[in-house]
Amino acid sequence: MRKTRLDNVPISEARERLLAAASLVPDVEEVSVTRSTGWMTAEPVFARFSMPAYPAAAMDGIAVKAVLTERASSESPILLMEGRDFDYINTGDPLPANRDAVIMIEHVREREEGLAEVRTAIPPWKHVRQAGEDVAAGEMIIPARHRIRPVDIGAMLAGGRTQVKVLKKPRGAIIPTGSEMVTPGTLPKRGQIIEFNGAVFASYLEEWGAEAVNRGIVPDDPEAIRQAVLDSVADCDFVILNAGSSAGTRDYTYQVLSELGDVLLHGVAARPGKPVVLAVVKGKPVLGLPGYPVSAYHSLDWFARPLIQTWYGEREGEGRRLTVRLSRSISGKLGAEDFIRLGVIYKEGEFWAFPLQRGAGVTMSLVKADALLRIPSQESGWEAGERVEVEGLRSPSEIARTLWLAGEDDPLLDRLASLFQQQHPGWSLRRLSGNGDNRSGGDWHGLVGVADRMRETFDPAGGVFFRLVEREWGWLTMPENRGRIFGGKGIPKADLGLIRPAAGSGLDDGLDRKYREAEELLEGRLRREPTLLKAAAAVASGTADVAVGTRTAAHPFGLSFIPAGILPLDLWLPNATLKTEGGGRLLSTLRSRAFQQAAEELPGYSTRSTGEKLEQSNEGVVSWDNQNQ
Amino acid sequence: MRKTRLDNVPISEARERLLAAASLVPDVEEVSVTRSTGWMTAEPVFARFSMPAYPAAAMDGIAVKAVLTERASSESPILLMEGRDFDYINTGDPLPANRDAVIMIEHVREREEGLAEVRTAIPPWKHVRQAGEDVAAGEMIIPARHRIRPVDIGAMLAGGRTQVKVLKKPRGAIIPTGSEMVTPGTLPKRGQIIEFNGAVFASYLEEWGAEAVNRGIVPDDPEAIRQAVLDSVADCDFVILNAGSSAGTRDYTYQVLSELGDVLLHGVAARPGKPVVLAVVKGKPVLGLPGYPVSAYHSLDWFARPLIQTWYGEREGEGRRLTVRLSRSISGKLGAEDFIRLGVIYKEGEFWAFPLQRGAGVTMSLVKADALLRIPSQESGWEAGERVEVEGLRSPSEIARTLWLAGEDDPLLDRLASLFQQQHPGWSLRRLSGNGDNRSGGDWHGLVGVADRMRETFDPAGGVFFRLVEREWGWLTMPENRGRIFGGKGIPKADLGLIRPAAGSGLDDGLDRKYREAEELLEGRLRREPTLLKAAAAVASGTADVAVGTRTAAHPFGLSFIPAGILPLDLWLPNATLKTEGGGRLLSTLRSRAFQQAAEELPGYSTRSTGEKLEQSNEGVVSWDNQNQ
Repeated sequence: MRKTRLDNVPISEARERLLAAASLVPDVEEVSVTRSTGWMTAEPVFARFSMPAYPAAAMDGIAVKAVLTERASSESPILLMEGRDFDYINTGDPLPANRDAVIMIEHVREREEGLAEVRTAIPPWKHVRQAGEDVAAGEMIIPARHRIRPVDIGAMLAGGRTQVKVLKKPRGAIIPTGSEMVTPGTLPKRGQIIEFNGAVFASYLEEWGAEAVNRGIVPDDPEAIRQAVLDSVADCDFVILNAGSSAGTRDYTYQVLSELGDVLLHGVAARPGKPVVLAVVKGKPVLGLPGYPVSAYHSLDWFARPLIQTWYGEREGEGRRLTVRLSRSISGKLGAEDFIRLGVIYKEGEFWAFPLQRGAGVTMSLVKADALLRIPSQESGWEAGERVEVEGLRSPSEIARTLWLAGEDDPLLDRLASLFQQQHPGWSLRRLSGNGDNRSGGDWHGLVGVADRMRETFDPAGGVFFRLVEREWGWLTMPENRGRIFGGKGIPKADLGLIRPAAGSGLDDGLDRKYREAEELLEGRLRREPTLLKAAAAVASGTADVAVGTRTAAHPFGLSFIPAGILPLDLWLPNATLKTEGGGRLLSTLRSRAFQQAAEELPGYSTRSTGEKLEQSNEGVVSWDNQNQ
Repeated sequence: MRKTRLDNVPISEARERLLAAASLVPDVEEVSVTRSTGWMTAEPVFARFSMPAYPAAAMDGIAVKAVLTERASSESPILLMEGRDFDYINTGDPLPANRDAVIMIEHVREREEGLAEVRTAIPPWKHVRQAGEDVAAGEMIIPARHRIRPVDIGAMLAGGRTQVKVLKKPRGAIIPTGSEMVTPGTLPKRGQIIEFNGAVFASYLEEWGAEAVNRGIVPDDPEAIRQAVLDSVADCDFVILNAGSSAGTRDYTYQVLSELGDVLLHGVAARPGKPVVLAVVKGKPVLGLPGYPVSAYHSLDWFARPLIQTWYGEREGEGRRLTVRLSRSISGKLGAEDFIRLGVIYKEGEFWAFPLQRGAGVTMSLVKADALLRIPSQESGWEAGERVEVEGLRSPSEIARTLWLAGEDDPLLDRLASLFQQQHPGWSLRRLSGNGDNRSGGDWHGLVGVADRMRETFDPAGGVFFRLVEREWGWLTMPENRGRIFGGKGIPKADLGLIRPAAGSGLDDGLDRKYREAEELLEGRLRREPTLLKAAAAVASGTADVAVGTRTAAHPFGLSFIPAGILPLDLWLPNATLKTEGGGRLLSTLRSRAFQQAAEELPGYSTRSTGEKLEQSNEGVVSWDNQNQ
């Protein structure tokens, strides 16, 4: 029997075990002060000499002996002779030996060449920067264990330091494993996967202050993995093995690490991210992390980051806290910490959060996340409407300057979003996930509806419709199946695998109607995909025979497109959004020449009415069936 | 007559003029996705192929045809045969052609080799990741004008992108000018100044996303400056000239730029930072910035940073806002914006701020600043106790974990502070500036007194004294003056320039007493320096003949030290501080072997009682005079 049970160690305990077992003693190296930003000092830095090194003028003016001005007043000004009594001096110039004060040039009247009139007495050392005023020799400029900032560089150079002793960066080896892995840039064959966690890990390690060494893909072979680990502990400070940390038939991490060193644990009480192996090999910490991107990211954050922080003697970062209300209930799993990626919208003065896809393999949920929610293991979850504290990944002001698209899906919306962000820096346009229940969010400053006129999803009285585009819809299939899709009634034959559009979308409504008219059953268990492109991907991968979609979606997959008609797609701006700056900005993008060009570059769109305001809610509405040819 | 009047343009208007006149059109370049963190996308990035590229197992288990399990239940389990009915499959493996679902290995009982028992019906596509589930070909991964993060790298690689088009960094030329400037690493002769603004500017430009090109020091020669500007506008996107932007006799920035191009303004309504020249030469923005470090930093922030943000189409950063109460009144200058660097302490649940040295030349005030206060030009200032909003340069939690030393000065306190920070990551120990009025701050969690037992500054009943060190005090002078300092009464001769210790310090009290006993007047106008090292620097620079100080302070300057006695220096921990975590941590550092070693490495200290708790407030108190030998 294969091992199927992992440990269930809480993350904090796992981290403590790791930090207690690992010996992390940073080396010291010298770097040039001018290139030292971001490094951490190993020792305090003291000034070698004083700055200024000599008494110097603090103002443009004339240098004098103060005592000469003792009796000067506006009633009885005194006259000073250049050379004998004063010298012109610029800011920063050393004070001549027999002078002890500077009179600002604005307070000096030049009677004639070489003769200056002074009307006020000044005390000695007025407008003089004393030697060492800024930094005196021997003074500490910055302490040990201080992250060097640009201002520190100035003070160090001023104090005569050109080299600074800093903590060497820890070297982290990254060993991607898996016989099915291919390097980025390869077209993966069936069964192959592009190895990208290694690059993400390297990028994070560098962001956190380590040097990353990606050793390249190692196949699922215990001997090869063993050798890669031994090579890595020899010249790195810690090692990350990815993946193979679970208990599958090709998961060798646990086996290899328990042979080479001491395994501290196999499995943490968290999801995603449970299958983690923590070990110490020849005194160096070795992290066996799961391969699913989301699990990989979380477990890296839990274990690699504290290793680096400990190396530098730093505390754990506190992150950006943000209080949000949950737009729906979220449940955790008792006995395991749960980590949920959230989208956050700003609505009626509060931040509202909704969970993104929970799958541990969904890289895009990391890309799209606005915030991260941690559900402690003893917490069962929260009800909709409750306020919780989350870690913000975007700033509150970025979130408040986001418009959200709800409703129909179309690949053109991506182009619109990108162009909007490009034309209006600081703003963004994003899509609520395709589920119908997102539509019930009501009007808020930032909601934008996408309507295909097949159904009245958006209230015509509550907002204004603008034409986005007209799009060709129809049937998508593999080229070889083109001729054998349809039965007699203009709908796909009953034994074919059919992908329906997202539930609640206009295309799906039309499909439903079409089947009703043909007096056929539209089988409930037929698959749906959330976006038109994902539906096309399913047909291209062979798991379905035909999908309802658009010409644009067929294109990237080389699928055959059997046209059925042309339908308009509109944006609905609720009155709440129309009134705002963001609404105006979106309209300007919609009506820009650049957007029209972006649409025309793709097959399957007509932009002849793009940007037009539709006076009546039903203008341009055409029946799905009328257009079907 | 020389020009002495500059323009008085408000900063925001100056910035608008600059951005309106400058043409900033970013170029595009392609970089490798794996090295793209921090770059900004020039175009949206679309997936080239789907991820996963084929339907794949989402769990370890067995791949089956779902329909086979339709009648399975715990009462009547069904038996499946390996090969015919199922295949073992690992997470990520492609689904075999005739399977459409995966049963988790935990739910499978292996009856015998090759025979699996299933007790639950599963629907098709259970635990299957559909092709394109994560990213479908054609989907947008990230939009244009998006700063690439590590997670984006994963998604781009998964979508088949290995190169990404990004905005080239703007190239900023830095031209340090000044015949008196020498490069860092040179020992400055009298009249020479180490050029360090160039390195600070380069470091900031890089932090803000530009490429910095430091062209090296150019002398104060209009022709040389002209040539450097022409060379720079030819191959850079903007140019910074530093300094020479004021109206002194050697300030050529205005002259050169008005000959080469269009000067937009000369002088902004701000202090520090007034003497700024903004110009456009051959379409490229040229900033003439003042040389004083604080002015230089501010003017760089006002003008270079928005240039870079505009290049990337970014908004101005919002900074970290923090509300503080002012511990003393702060006045601005009507008609000019005022920028004040603040120290911030955490006291009784609020942040209290006090101004640091205001001199524009004081680099260390930038290093020490916790926050920045901007006084708008129409605001005259604020009273002590008022609440104002400031830009935080350290985080609130860093500020709350800071202990502050008030009272006597000693170079050893720098060592103590550095060691404390090193031994207690996240904590810091800093010095309130030497002014006596800082002592009146009362007890707060974080106050630590430094007492030399010459006066009862700190209330013995309100806290506990611990011995810091015993130090040698005496007279500091240039070696050649060693024999001719003293008159008959054991005090320096009346005609000598004398540096007194900071007002209100114990050493100063003792000096006062000594003069009274000698029945001599201690002239009120004799200079004071805020720290012992600055006093020593003054003697070394020749602006005074003798200073009262310690052996340690004489050392870095090669001054002669004429010993007068040994006096203890103690730390006073008020009860409020003693109770806190920080107080305990400070004591542990005080008593550490490392601190003792640090003190003994310096001349002039004895650590025989270091760390001892002094049971009585007057224990170890010795008269200043008794010790005078």
